[in-house]
Amino acid sequence: MKAPIRESSGSPVRPSNGVLQPLGISDVTIIGGYWAQRRNVNRLRSIPHCLEWETSVGSIDNFAKAAAGVDAGGRAGREFSDSDVYKLIEAMAWQSACAFDSLLEGQISKLASQIAAAQQPDGYLNTHFGQPGQPGRYTDFEWGHELYCYGHLFQAAVARLAAGQDDTLVGVARRAADHVCDEFGDDGRVAICGHPEVEAGLAELGRALGRADYIEQARLFIARRGNGLLAPIEWGQEYFQDDQPVRDATVFRGHAVRAGYLASGAIDVAIETGDSQLLAAVRAQYDRTLARRTYITGGMGSRHTGESFGDDFELPPDRAYCETCAAIGSVMVAWRLLLATGDESYADVIERTLYNAIAASPSESGDAFFYANPLQVRTPTREPGPREVCLRAESGSRAAWFTVPCCPPNVARMLASLPAYVATTEGNRLRLHQFTPGEIVARRPGGDELRLSVATEYPNDGRVTVTVVTATGDWSLALRVPGWASVKLTGLRRDGRLAVADGRCKPGDVFVMDIDMEPRLTYPDPRIDAVRGCVAVERGPLVLCLESANSSDGPIGDFRLDSTVTPTALGDGAFVAGRSVSPPDEGWPYLGGVPKSEGKAVAAQLIPYHRWGNRGPSAMRVWLPLA
Amino acid sequence: MKAPIRESSGSPVRPSNGVLQPLGISDVTIIGGYWAQRRNVNRLRSIPHCLEWETSVGSIDNFAKAAAGVDAGGRAGREFSDSDVYKLIEAMAWQSACAFDSLLEGQISKLASQIAAAQQPDGYLNTHFGQPGQPGRYTDFEWGHELYCYGHLFQAAVARLAAGQDDTLVGVARRAADHVCDEFGDDGRVAICGHPEVEAGLAELGRALGRADYIEQARLFIARRGNGLLAPIEWGQEYFQDDQPVRDATVFRGHAVRAGYLASGAIDVAIETGDSQLLAAVRAQYDRTLARRTYITGGMGSRHTGESFGDDFELPPDRAYCETCAAIGSVMVAWRLLLATGDESYADVIERTLYNAIAASPSESGDAFFYANPLQVRTPTREPGPREVCLRAESGSRAAWFTVPCCPPNVARMLASLPAYVATTEGNRLRLHQFTPGEIVARRPGGDELRLSVATEYPNDGRVTVTVVTATGDWSLALRVPGWASVKLTGLRRDGRLAVADGRCKPGDVFVMDIDMEPRLTYPDPRIDAVRGCVAVERGPLVLCLESANSSDGPIGDFRLDSTVTPTALGDGAFVAGRSVSPPDEGWPYLGGVPKSEGKAVAAQLIPYHRWGNRGPSAMRVWLPLA
Repeated sequence: MKAPIRESSGSPVRPSNGVLQPLGISDVTIIGGYWAQRRNVNRLRSIPHCLEWETSVGSIDNFAKAAAGVDAGGRAGREFSDSDVYKLIEAMAWQSACAFDSLLEGQISKLASQIAAAQQPDGYLNTHFGQPGQPGRYTDFEWGHELYCYGHLFQAAVARLAAGQDDTLVGVARRAADHVCDEFGDDGRVAICGHPEVEAGLAELGRALGRADYIEQARLFIARRGNGLLAPIEWGQEYFQDDQPVRDATVFRGHAVRAGYLASGAIDVAIETGDSQLLAAVRAQYDRTLARRTYITGGMGSRHTGESFGDDFELPPDRAYCETCAAIGSVMVAWRLLLATGDESYADVIERTLYNAIAASPSESGDAFFYANPLQVRTPTREPGPREVCLRAESGSRAAWFTVPCCPPNVARMLASLPAYVATTEGNRLRLHQFTPGEIVARRPGGDELRLSVATEYPNDGRVTVTVVTATGDWSLALRVPGWASVKLTGLRRDGRLAVADGRCKPGDVFVMDIDMEPRLTYPDPRIDAVRGCVAVERGPLVLCLESANSSDGPIGDFRLDSTVTPTALGDGAFVAGRSVSPPDEGWPYLGGVPKSEGKAVAAQLIPYHRWGNRGPSAMRVWLPLA
Repeated sequence: MKAPIRESSGSPVRPSNGVLQPLGISDVTIIGGYWAQRRNVNRLRSIPHCLEWETSVGSIDNFAKAAAGVDAGGRAGREFSDSDVYKLIEAMAWQSACAFDSLLEGQISKLASQIAAAQQPDGYLNTHFGQPGQPGRYTDFEWGHELYCYGHLFQAAVARLAAGQDDTLVGVARRAADHVCDEFGDDGRVAICGHPEVEAGLAELGRALGRADYIEQARLFIARRGNGLLAPIEWGQEYFQDDQPVRDATVFRGHAVRAGYLASGAIDVAIETGDSQLLAAVRAQYDRTLARRTYITGGMGSRHTGESFGDDFELPPDRAYCETCAAIGSVMVAWRLLLATGDESYADVIERTLYNAIAASPSESGDAFFYANPLQVRTPTREPGPREVCLRAESGSRAAWFTVPCCPPNVARMLASLPAYVATTEGNRLRLHQFTPGEIVARRPGGDELRLSVATEYPNDGRVTVTVVTATGDWSLALRVPGWASVKLTGLRRDGRLAVADGRCKPGDVFVMDIDMEPRLTYPDPRIDAVRGCVAVERGPLVLCLESANSSDGPIGDFRLDSTVTPTALGDGAFVAGRSVSPPDEGWPYLGGVPKSEGKAVAAQLIPYHRWGNRGPSAMRVWLPLA
């Protein structure tokens, strides 16, 4: 029996050219396994949690207040809170695009009506500006976030369009985008937003609606940045990447979320305008950022101050800021570069970042989130109460909500759109980038269709089995071979970073890739001063950590790993051998002579980093000193 | 020929009891050598520099505006800028107390008149509050700094009184202190200042004027802190040490300058009220802070965020904030504990902090200052222009002035008062704590006097020669033996941390301590993750560093020190042997396998940390990876 053919749906990024072509969001169905469990928690807990909080803190009601036309001083939240609502709608929209959900559809519809009511006749939309008693429109490009908010509105609209829903929200977005083009076009205000985001949003909406003027407006914003249009602020022009033209920069710098969002928009513009120089520049910036300014978790942004990148190789594990949203920004960039270039190393980055930075943020119950994702916590941090609104800069414990609540709905939209990142086509070859059980369908113009079933317990187990369910036309298949992996192939042939199925796929064909998932020791570049003399333990795509909840042999800082003993797998983690050393006597801590490093032999149990902090306040470290 | 006997003068801290008694500021004359050169630069360049800047940015004119009684929106600078003026006066006053200086006296007199004109009839004095158009008095204890400013006024007055000058400024301070006692006494406002400082200021002024009520007021402020009187702020109650009662805390935490100033006031109160429990508590806090939260330079405060202490052993060299003012606060605490306990380890801390944290701040020309004092700078930082006002958080380059210009006048007052920290008496024994060429006179009730001459080229050379010039009465002598030193003694006997001259000092007696000044390797406590696998090189009291200006063998981060080769002295620095390794190829920086560490043999020249950054922008590191 043949499964019914669905219409191909949209996806978050649909470049008009590039080596790889995205599938539609509903072309991949994740069934069971790691990500299905995560997405279920997202659907059942995190999305309702965000809706409940955005309601209770007033972000949603702000639209009704704006619609009423008077700010009685009652507007709630920070100036960018509209974007929280748009991100939540985007999460709901991707979720419903994957599998139609009448509850979510009803919520989207209601929210869209509230938003539409607040939109001005000329398309302007923001609850913080422009009403009597509020600051005037476009009076604060540094911090006002008006264009940033539009960007998230546009991305939400793209998610609606992806499911074929040209609804109220899309209408709002279209009017807002038209307004932006009128206001900020070639003859308009020469300005940019302090927080990049509108660029990628305009490009995506332009692609989804076939509106070249939106893409041209994105191009203008990209071209304008880096010329000092924004006024100086405490953290310098590099905070919002206004220090250098985008095409002249050599590395990501400044605020990490802003950097990722900007690069995403720049790639979109480069692709759509055929600007290969801009594409190459942004790719080189990202490659250099991966080589010098990225944590082993995929996290980015090493400084709390300015939530920013530090210098090259300034990657402290303890004060790592690694904002969850910056990890999402990095996936946005990596995905665009993967589509443009076909280079599977970007799929490696996406995998690493998804498992170790983004999946680490939500608690197992989906109702608390890490904002910062440090790789070491020395002292267990107080756990906030379930109704406590926390500062963003706290680290070491998850919180239900934040004064700047960008991360929770960002995680929600990322997990909701996850099927889009699993596979692509390269002409008539399907490429499988991420390993999750489920079904994949790919279509070619003319009706040729390939339908695959993927079975795997990845990342707990390394076997990935791909079965061809149906195949009409001339399809072939390739699987990413992770850069860190040694693999055994059945029915597949190694070709660089791919495991390739030679010949035409036929129904019933079975291909197997066995990825070695034994825990392995990973050494840092010696220029990363902060983790000298340490190793990390990785298992498959997972970075592991030592958490005090698993340690009965004294403080986890006293553990010294014995690298001559091979780590052994244990559940989704590992056992490692080493010694527990005694700390030196108290006193002046800088002395002549090498400190003693004796200690009793112990074994330490490591767990996946993404699972840490789910058993109450604890200490944790990813990088383990060598014995 | 007998030198003329001067009247004994005052000093910054004059406890009514304790193991050691301070000398007067003019009882020690620093003649030549390291500190004389520094103090000359301070007198001839830094003090005029501060006066010029405080004039040009308007801090001084603020008093005239306040005297005029109207704020036409023209007040300049931050809310605590009055304190910058008081600290400058204090610097001038100590300088003139050491050697009467009619230019400085004229400047002090003029400034004091301007300040006096701004004082309200009830003693209130602040240029930021209380005038029409300004916020009301005492409406912002968290950030207003009114009491903090009084504290600096009081310390300036103490410096005037130390020279026997009961002048206009002292009158202003007396009226302000009376006002504080009226306003915040037992029957007054139950409040504390967000920035501790008034406590030590009141205690010192109380001692200098014999006013027990001032000391009682200081006691009240100390007793009130830690009970949540200050409203919550972003960085938490610990930022201003209002999280725990002073006597219950176990370690310095929060804003590092605040922590040091608070502890100083608490020790003063403990001594004057005989509160041995409070003294023991603060001493234990400081000891723990030295053991776990202090840099090898003596610097304190590891986080830029909140300018604060981090967790125990969180001591990153690159992002070390190590505010210059926090080092001064640490000296204030260590000096009080030295006087109270006689424990020379506190004199070690003072020496280390003076040479490696405080002396590092001013440029060699005395007209630019480090605000933060990191122990590693990877990328040379842009050098600000001579008329550029910099943000405090910049690091890696000295600046002429800052938006929060607390450090320059603080350094100026520290260097101006330096003679006070050189020696003490312990009954009829003189203790020499700091080694500088010069003359020292000590007096006992009844007229007995000891006059010493000290000859040394310390810290360039380890020989300290003390000659008794005159001695009336029964005097003995002891020299500190630095904790890091091996010494050879001539005419002296080792007794714990002291080198003691047995018997009664006679004119013409010569005592010699030869301190081994060979460069030595120093290893960090293994719990300091950020410098694992590294050593520092120290020479005498000086922490050395590798600066890129001295490196022709590639980036300084590629140097690996060979600890099997003994470092050799070179000028005030050292030569060390090692290898220059090649960095790995660009790419993902976390790989299986131990990174290669080959490289060509090189020698590296190290210079004193306090001298770094005087040859234009450069990279620098104190902690050197081992080969």
